[in-house]
Amino acid sequence: MPKKLAILGSTGSIGTQTLDVAAAHPDEFEVAALAAGSNLPVMIQQIEKFRPALVSVATPSLAAELKERFGGTLQVEVGEAGLHAVATYSEAEIVVTAVVGAMGLRPTIAAIEAGKDIALANKETLVAAGHLVTDLAARHGSRILPVDSEHSAIFQCIHGTNQKDVAKILLTASGGAFRDKSRKEMAAASRADALAHPNWSMGAKITIDSATLMNKGLEVIEAHWLFGLPYEQIEVLIHPQSIIHSMVEFRDRSVLAQLGTPDMRIPIQYALSYPNRLESSWPSLDLLSVGTLTFRKPDLVRFPILGLAYEAGKAGGSMPAVLNAANEAAVDLFLREKIGFLDIERILMQVMEQHTSIHHPTLDDIAAVDQWAREAARRLGKS
Amino acid sequence: MPKKLAILGSTGSIGTQTLDVAAAHPDEFEVAALAAGSNLPVMIQQIEKFRPALVSVATPSLAAELKERFGGTLQVEVGEAGLHAVATYSEAEIVVTAVVGAMGLRPTIAAIEAGKDIALANKETLVAAGHLVTDLAARHGSRILPVDSEHSAIFQCIHGTNQKDVAKILLTASGGAFRDKSRKEMAAASRADALAHPNWSMGAKITIDSATLMNKGLEVIEAHWLFGLPYEQIEVLIHPQSIIHSMVEFRDRSVLAQLGTPDMRIPIQYALSYPNRLESSWPSLDLLSVGTLTFRKPDLVRFPILGLAYEAGKAGGSMPAVLNAANEAAVDLFLREKIGFLDIERILMQVMEQHTSIHHPTLDDIAAVDQWAREAARRLGKS
Repeated sequence: MPKKLAILGSTGSIGTQTLDVAAAHPDEFEVAALAAGSNLPVMIQQIEKFRPALVSVATPSLAAELKERFGGTLQVEVGEAGLHAVATYSEAEIVVTAVVGAMGLRPTIAAIEAGKDIALANKETLVAAGHLVTDLAARHGSRILPVDSEHSAIFQCIHGTNQKDVAKILLTASGGAFRDKSRKEMAAASRADALAHPNWSMGAKITIDSATLMNKGLEVIEAHWLFGLPYEQIEVLIHPQSIIHSMVEFRDRSVLAQLGTPDMRIPIQYALSYPNRLESSWPSLDLLSVGTLTFRKPDLVRFPILGLAYEAGKAGGSMPAVLNAANEAAVDLFLREKIGFLDIERILMQVMEQHTSIHHPTLDDIAAVDQWAREAARRLGKS
Repeated sequence: MPKKLAILGSTGSIGTQTLDVAAAHPDEFEVAALAAGSNLPVMIQQIEKFRPALVSVATPSLAAELKERFGGTLQVEVGEAGLHAVATYSEAEIVVTAVVGAMGLRPTIAAIEAGKDIALANKETLVAAGHLVTDLAARHGSRILPVDSEHSAIFQCIHGTNQKDVAKILLTASGGAFRDKSRKEMAAASRADALAHPNWSMGAKITIDSATLMNKGLEVIEAHWLFGLPYEQIEVLIHPQSIIHSMVEFRDRSVLAQLGTPDMRIPIQYALSYPNRLESSWPSLDLLSVGTLTFRKPDLVRFPILGLAYEAGKAGGSMPAVLNAANEAAVDLFLREKIGFLDIERILMQVMEQHTSIHHPTLDDIAAVDQWAREAARRLGKS
C-alpha cells in the first residue's frame, strides 16, 4: 500500500521537489491532499498529475476557479481553514510541512494532534514552539522527520544509536552569498547580491537567511529541539562546498557525516521513506570531481546574527519566536528594498532587546509576541 | 560485569592499543588471556598490569621464563597450541585477532567454533578463507566485528540499515609512503623510504602493504566478505589526509562517512563496546585545524597491485590466499633487503599466473596453496 501524503506548501521549492519524489515512486507514495497559496497555474498542473482528493488555496476566488475547472470530484478549501483541513486530512499518514515562516506552526500542531507523522520542512515551527511541538508529538506518537538537509544528515548519522552516545552535533553552513564579503560590502549589498546563493537553489526568504547566517541560527534552535541537545553541544562549521550536510561526534570521538549532492530530494525522500531507503535515479555524489572539502570557523563579527540566534535559543521561552518573527518582517522589508542588508541584524538586536522572554509560552502567547515582534521590526525598519 | 577479552598478538601495535582501551575502561573490560610472540619484556609488563589467567608465547624457553617469574598462578602455553588455547579460552567472550598474516587464520577459526565474538584485526583471515569463516560465524552465532579503521568506518555507517539499501562502499586510502612518487623513484626506494607512512603508525608489514596499495587490496577482499557485497560495489578512493576512514553510498544516493583522528583506539574500542559507544578522553577530531580534505582516483598504472587484488578477489577460490601468502613472502624479502620495492609486484603477478584457483578450498587446501605460494615467491625473489 502506498503511503498517503499531504503537502502544505505544494507549489514552493520543497513542495514541488516532494512531488518529484512522489512521482518517482508511484508504488510507494500517493498524494492525498495539497495546500498552496496563489500559484494557480502550478497548482492546476499538480492536481492534474497527482489527482489529490483535497486541495486548499489562499482565496475564495482561486478556490472558485479550481472548482469550476475540476468539478465536483475535488474538495477545495480556502485559507487558514484550508491549511488545517489539508494538515488533518483523515486519509493522509504523513504531512509535509513546507510552508514558509511562522504560518506553518498551527497546521503542524493540528497535524500532530491528528496523529500524523510530520516531514518537517518548516523550521519556524520548532524555533517558535519547540517545547509545545515536541511535547505534543511525544503524547500523540507522531514522529517528526526532518527535511532540512542538515537535520536529515544528523538524523541519518544518529539512526540506530543511543542519544547518550552523542557528544555534539556539527551543523555545516555554506556561508551563504556573503561568505567572503566584508562588512562594508554587505552594507552596500543589493537584493540581487543577497539572493545569489553559491550552492543551493531555494526560496527567496531562506536564501536571505542563508546570507545573514540566520538560517543556520534557526537550524541550531531546531536541532536543539529535534535532537534534545543543549546549545553547548551544537556547533556550526563553515563548509563552502555544501557536500557534508552535517556531522555528529559521538562520545568515543568517532564522527559520522552525511554527504551528498546539493539535492533536496534526498532528504525529502528519506523523511518520506524512513526508516527505509528507496532506489533513486538522480546522480551519485562524485567526490573526485568535487576534489576538495574545506572547513572554517564561522565569523561572528561579520555575521552577528548567528550569535543572536544562540542567545535567543539559550534564553528560551518566547525569545526564539520573537527572533524568528522579527527576522521574517526584516527580511520582507529587505526583499522589498525598504532597508539595507545590515539593517536586518540591527532590527533583530533591537527587537530582542525590547522583549522580556515569557517562560514556557502558550500558543496564544507565541502568536502575540510574534505579532508584536513583526510590528516592532517594521517600526525599526522605518527609522 | 566487565566483558572478558582474549588478545592474540598482544605486544604488537593493535594488541598494545587494545590494552590501552581496556586500561581506560576497567569497569567495561577484563583481560582474560594474552598471546604474544617473543617480546618478553613487554609481555611481562602486560601480565603485571592486566593479570590475565592465561598467556602464550612463541617458545618453551620464553614460557619457562614466565613460569619462573609469575609462579603457579599464571597458566603459560606455547606456540600454535598456545595461540589456540588463548583463542578458545573458556572465560573469554571476545577474541581480538591482532596477529599479523596468515598465521591468524586457524586460531580465529578455533575462536569462532568456540562461539566467541571476534574483533578482527587480522585481515588475512577473511582474505584467505572468507567463505569458510563467514559461513562458520553464521553457524556458531559468532559476530565478526571489524577493527581495521576502514571496515570499522563502514560498519558504523551501515549500523541500523538494511543490507539491500547499500549501493556501494568507498574505501579510502592514504596512498601510502609512495603516493606521489614516480615508478622510477619506487624502483630505487629503500626499506626506510617504504616504511615512512604519512599518517598512521603501524607495524612494518602493513606499512609496506600500504606503500604498494596491497593493504587496500586486502581490505577490498575483506570488505567483500564482511559486508557481503560484490567487487563491483566496492571502490577505492585516495584520500591523503586519512580523516574520512571510509564511506557508504546508499541506494537513495545519500552517503554516510565515518571520520576521526588517525587513532586506532577508536575502531578497536568500537569493536569491543559494540553496539554501545564508550566515553573517551582522547582528543576530538578538529576539522578546523585539518582544514582541507582531498580525494583522487587510485592510479592503477603506478600501483598495479591494487588491480591484482581485485583480480584475485573476483577469481575467488584459493586465489586470494595465494596473493596474500606470496605477498607476505615478498614483503619479508623486501624488509630483509633481498629484493627491490617493485620486485614485490613482479613476484605477485608471476605467482598468481602460476596458480590455478581451487574452487571452494578447504582449510587444508588453503594451507597447501599458502605454503606453495610462499615458496614460489621466494624462488622468484632470487631471480
